[in-house]
Amino acid sequence: MVQLRLKEESARSLVEIARLVRVMVPDVPLIVNDRADVALAADADGVHVGVDDLSPALLRRIVPEGFIIGASVGSDDEVERSAGADYVGIGPVYATGSKPDAGSEIGPERFAQLARRCGLPAVAIGGISVETTPAVLAVGASGIAVISALFGSADPTRAALDLRAALDASGR
Amino acid sequence: MVQLRLKEESARSLVEIARLVRVMVPDVPLIVNDRADVALAADADGVHVGVDDLSPALLRRIVPEGFIIGASVGSDDEVERSAGADYVGIGPVYATGSKPDAGSEIGPERFAQLARRCGLPAVAIGGISVETTPAVLAVGASGIAVISALFGSADPTRAALDLRAALDASGR
Repeated sequence: MVQLRLKEESARSLVEIARLVRVMVPDVPLIVNDRADVALAADADGVHVGVDDLSPALLRRIVPEGFIIGASVGSDDEVERSAGADYVGIGPVYATGSKPDAGSEIGPERFAQLARRCGLPAVAIGGISVETTPAVLAVGASGIAVISALFGSADPTRAALDLRAALDASGR
Repeated sequence: MVQLRLKEESARSLVEIARLVRVMVPDVPLIVNDRADVALAADADGVHVGVDDLSPALLRRIVPEGFIIGASVGSDDEVERSAGADYVGIGPVYATGSKPDAGSEIGPERFAQLARRCGLPAVAIGGISVETTPAVLAVGASGIAVISALFGSADPTRAALDLRAALDASGR
């Protein structure tokens, strides 16, 4: 999946950018961060929300069947709020420079504990790289989410292929 | 109508506040500013958008039939973008202190010109008071939108009744 996450853009710009992403990567599901209205207007596949956004349960009532809803979870209080989502993003598993407000790293064991409490497919986020991928898969991650591992790389395509190989090596 | 406009609140808070407003003023249509997803989740009656938000035409595709869509118009370029709305808010007709980014006042004649170009019911906004209401109604305003005239008053209930009387005096 590609998640479109541009906190400072207007809804008007977001929907235009989302449509460009759609054209550029037509075969990859597109998820829009925070804004279900933008996601719907851009014909995206889903929306990903945090704890200060509309809850997955509320969103479910306003999106069509099959629309993907993801939720960020970083603490026990956030577990309950994730109910109704299709997947959760749990982290930051490791320290990250991509999101200054992400909080302190929780580590793979805590990741696994929160994932069990959510009872949903859990994507590991925060400091995920080729090096850290095996550890999160070993504790049950259904997937990984990355920013720096791709866009902090001198060769993002190579970095993506290396991550793909790390997932394939674990049978994901 | 009541329009909920709190630019700094999270979507989570907005939906909670919207539901409280619904309970406090159950018989008045509730419009949420900017966010169609919040409006839908809060069972509001509509959404009001500006030029940097999703366009009325796009919004129409993602809201149920009968959902009210309002659009702000302040210049000729914004007229075209209002297509698909149920009403437009045009202004600032007079100088206002409520919205620091509102731009300079356009006056009643320019209000009327933009209203004709939109071809939609037009609500006058910006510096509207009991004193200025007759002038905007005289040039064809379908309604008035106020912040300061109520909340800048020592007695908002009295101020509302006075505005109502000014509208009734013009047969609105």
